[in-house]
Amino acid sequence: MSKIEEFRSFMCETNVDAFMLHTKDEYLNEYSKELAELCGFTGTNGLLIVTKSNKCPFFTDGRYITQARSQLDQGSFRVYNIQEEDPHKWVKANLTLTTSLGYYPQYFTIKEIRKYEGICKLVPYLIKKDSSHKAQTIVSHISGESSKGKCERVAKNIEPEAVLLTDPNSISWLLNLRNESAEYTPCILGRAILYKNGNVDLFIQDKEHSTIEANFDDHINVFDISELENSLHKLNSMIIDPTTTPMSIMAMIKNKQIIEREDPCLLHKAVKNQTEITGSISAHIKDGVAVTNFLYWLIDSEITELEAEAKILEYRKEQNLFKQPSFPTISAFNENGAIIHYRASNKTNKAIKKDGLYLIDSGGQYLDGTTDVTRTVAIGDPTNEQRAHYTIVLKAHIALASAVFPSGTTGGELDILARIHLWNFGMDYMHGTGHGVGSYLSVHEGPQAISKGNKVKLMPGMILSNEPGYYIPGKYGIRIENLMYVEKQENSFLIFKQLTSVPYDKKLIDVQMLIEDEIKWINSYHQFVYRNLENSIKDKEWLKSMCDPLK
Amino acid sequence: MSKIEEFRSFMCETNVDAFMLHTKDEYLNEYSKELAELCGFTGTNGLLIVTKSNKCPFFTDGRYITQARSQLDQGSFRVYNIQEEDPHKWVKANLTLTTSLGYYPQYFTIKEIRKYEGICKLVPYLIKKDSSHKAQTIVSHISGESSKGKCERVAKNIEPEAVLLTDPNSISWLLNLRNESAEYTPCILGRAILYKNGNVDLFIQDKEHSTIEANFDDHINVFDISELENSLHKLNSMIIDPTTTPMSIMAMIKNKQIIEREDPCLLHKAVKNQTEITGSISAHIKDGVAVTNFLYWLIDSEITELEAEAKILEYRKEQNLFKQPSFPTISAFNENGAIIHYRASNKTNKAIKKDGLYLIDSGGQYLDGTTDVTRTVAIGDPTNEQRAHYTIVLKAHIALASAVFPSGTTGGELDILARIHLWNFGMDYMHGTGHGVGSYLSVHEGPQAISKGNKVKLMPGMILSNEPGYYIPGKYGIRIENLMYVEKQENSFLIFKQLTSVPYDKKLIDVQMLIEDEIKWINSYHQFVYRNLENSIKDKEWLKSMCDPLK
Repeated sequence: MSKIEEFRSFMCETNVDAFMLHTKDEYLNEYSKELAELCGFTGTNGLLIVTKSNKCPFFTDGRYITQARSQLDQGSFRVYNIQEEDPHKWVKANLTLTTSLGYYPQYFTIKEIRKYEGICKLVPYLIKKDSSHKAQTIVSHISGESSKGKCERVAKNIEPEAVLLTDPNSISWLLNLRNESAEYTPCILGRAILYKNGNVDLFIQDKEHSTIEANFDDHINVFDISELENSLHKLNSMIIDPTTTPMSIMAMIKNKQIIEREDPCLLHKAVKNQTEITGSISAHIKDGVAVTNFLYWLIDSEITELEAEAKILEYRKEQNLFKQPSFPTISAFNENGAIIHYRASNKTNKAIKKDGLYLIDSGGQYLDGTTDVTRTVAIGDPTNEQRAHYTIVLKAHIALASAVFPSGTTGGELDILARIHLWNFGMDYMHGTGHGVGSYLSVHEGPQAISKGNKVKLMPGMILSNEPGYYIPGKYGIRIENLMYVEKQENSFLIFKQLTSVPYDKKLIDVQMLIEDEIKWINSYHQFVYRNLENSIKDKEWLKSMCDPLK
Repeated sequence: MSKIEEFRSFMCETNVDAFMLHTKDEYLNEYSKELAELCGFTGTNGLLIVTKSNKCPFFTDGRYITQARSQLDQGSFRVYNIQEEDPHKWVKANLTLTTSLGYYPQYFTIKEIRKYEGICKLVPYLIKKDSSHKAQTIVSHISGESSKGKCERVAKNIEPEAVLLTDPNSISWLLNLRNESAEYTPCILGRAILYKNGNVDLFIQDKEHSTIEANFDDHINVFDISELENSLHKLNSMIIDPTTTPMSIMAMIKNKQIIEREDPCLLHKAVKNQTEITGSISAHIKDGVAVTNFLYWLIDSEITELEAEAKILEYRKEQNLFKQPSFPTISAFNENGAIIHYRASNKTNKAIKKDGLYLIDSGGQYLDGTTDVTRTVAIGDPTNEQRAHYTIVLKAHIALASAVFPSGTTGGELDILARIHLWNFGMDYMHGTGHGVGSYLSVHEGPQAISKGNKVKLMPGMILSNEPGYYIPGKYGIRIENLMYVEKQENSFLIFKQLTSVPYDKKLIDVQMLIEDEIKWINSYHQFVYRNLENSIKDKEWLKSMCDPLK
């Protein structure tokens, strides 16, 4: 019996007509074991509806369409681009108020479920979790501000009795705690109640099996997650964020006075303090050494994508305060580079050999900061077309990097400054231009982003990526990514300061296509890179040649 | 007794605590006689609240703050910048549910009044109108599509019995009618009911005194405005647009089934057909001849702002199919140019003599199209600073003019392409970059605009202005404005095609500040101007020198 048939017999037992699963787990990690086991999809954004018969619809975005079509069995599933057909439309067309849709209430938030209300019968089915894999190693984190200070700052604007914090990133930030056992993002798994007076009850997932190395401040009381429900019962009123609160928790707070509002930690967390910015600068110099050493090693190596991925990790491990990668490395040669969220496997692993384009998108978690950098380099001799495409993406990257803008400007407004350079040539890229980044926390952090429609005003201290790209399916992908932070100038306009210190591949730059200001920008960036790396790099002469001014 | 004291005794009689007036009249014209008489303000955006005692608050936007402060008596009025203090906040702070706020229900729309509901008692007071000034001369207009065709196109998507059209621009467009007696905008003053079957009842303001030269198609029935109420009573359901429907009409449709929605003519009207585009191209060539002849005449003339204003009208009158200016001409020398919506009067009239900057923003209503153009020219020798500022504004103008963008892009997204050039130097302008323009209709036409927050997707056939500026209060103003229309390229990306044909002042261009693509753009634009004007201009040699390539 196939996995899907097994699941259908479970659906028969529980008497539902359809069952919805997606890639997120209860702590908003973009990976659910259940979904992967059921259909084989390993991307970070997908929603599956298991039906009793026929093909099951699977929804994902442009980045994953190709991948989903190759991972999912075409006899059992039908893959939809969520821009063209979304689950909401599908449910409306295929279910009615007399048919039922099951879901795991731990995995779906209030906001996600709310849109199906009034269309079909929604049946929550509490999944029994084997929690052994959640055992945590909880440590204190130095962030430049005491947890007590943060709690008071956030609690100041709370009108009801408390705010229920459901986003592990917010909790980790607020309490200056990290979980060293978590992969990629060192988040505490748990929930917290922040009271009006600034005190916090922290509820840790599987406290019994967790190793707690942190000393908790007086204002923090620690419990096991099983005690959350009891504590919630004692509250009469609270703030919750419907975009991060699972339906399973909503069931615990029925009949309470609920104020729905954006998580009050989000904006505070996004604006980094001086310690965090200084730490990030230091982490990025170390990361620049690691990535640039890797690029030097790459020149004469005959290797595969997987070997390259292992090598860059090796170089990062040489660096002080490095803990682990901040996300799965994208090590992609030629046509694999056109798969935006590619992950090399034994099945897809390509040899990196001339001629072609190699794209590596990787990052590290350092105790002093989180990094994320993409470089595209020529292996052998690039074609004129490859150089033109690279240079256009570089122009887009420089346009955003050198933007000057007044307070009140949003990332949604800035996106076009990069994109217009591709539009000029009838080109585009099907992803945002930049995302927010945490401080030894998630490499994707809101609420700010350089992305169409984002309405968050950019503020000094925010860290963002700048990563325009261009992808030709079946041929190659180009992406150039730096992290940068927002700084206020003397005239009170805002600018971006570069964090990433890794040279661009001059072999891929067509100087004829650049204007003087762009050439100046590149030369000045390469000077910055050279200054940062010269004393730590394996081959200083080579670095010098990489950072020499463009002619 | 002052006007305001007279008004206060009227308020006593009608027993209201405060009374609200603004600049719009019942047909959305941005001028109300009542407001101007009461406080002296002549701008196009202002809201006054008359209180029983104390200073009366007056709210306007950044363009009019200086003007309002000079026109309104500081002893009786207090001028607020609406970005900092808005009437809604003021009413909330100063009135309660037991105090009353009077207003003329003919002059305020549903949407405008709705925001005060639940804050204070709203008391509509029907103003008695002397309608003699509304007598109309109604003529047919050739637009490239029959009114019957338009009515069927718009009616197709109406679910209730009818749509009530309250915007005179929509009615004029839909019925291919114009009113030759109206100043600036040749709009029919009236209302219309478009029925599901494509028939229309047209209700004309003061039909008895109007001259009707148009032949009405069979699907149109014509009535006097006084019959509107009766016709509305016969309907059970209708669509209305709350942003253009006055409260006085809302009172007529109580207890009906109302669907509130954007006026369904708006988007159809904004997308010009081939006849309208061809007409606009022709109108702009004629307008280019007039404005360029004016600029030639200006060189050696010793004149005032008012004389210049009269002269440009004279040149326009020489042109075929010209009817009247499309808005009050802004003829402004030096510091007067820094007043964004300046209008020269005997009191402010300056002599135009060297050295300085002269800004002229003017337009014409031609039967084949509406124009709007701004040029800033140097009188005598410009300073380096003036040339730098002019060149920065020109860079902004070129960046928008040469934008390439995919379908789905909004004017809100494009605004920054122009503005970033000013931001780069810590400069900005306190108005949008462009507005939509009608076809022998209003020179300001929605719903599209190149302006922060505008969410309307740009479509082939839309006409827009491109008018970045820079203003130094007390010194000078710079604005460069062309009209242009959206066209689809072969690769399905959209571009702008220039309509306006008037040379830029090369004396003000600092070529060192331009990149090669900008120089090419200017040279190619000047070639386009030369081709369009060479056979009609007074001095062809001079035109040639104006349009010679930049060195």
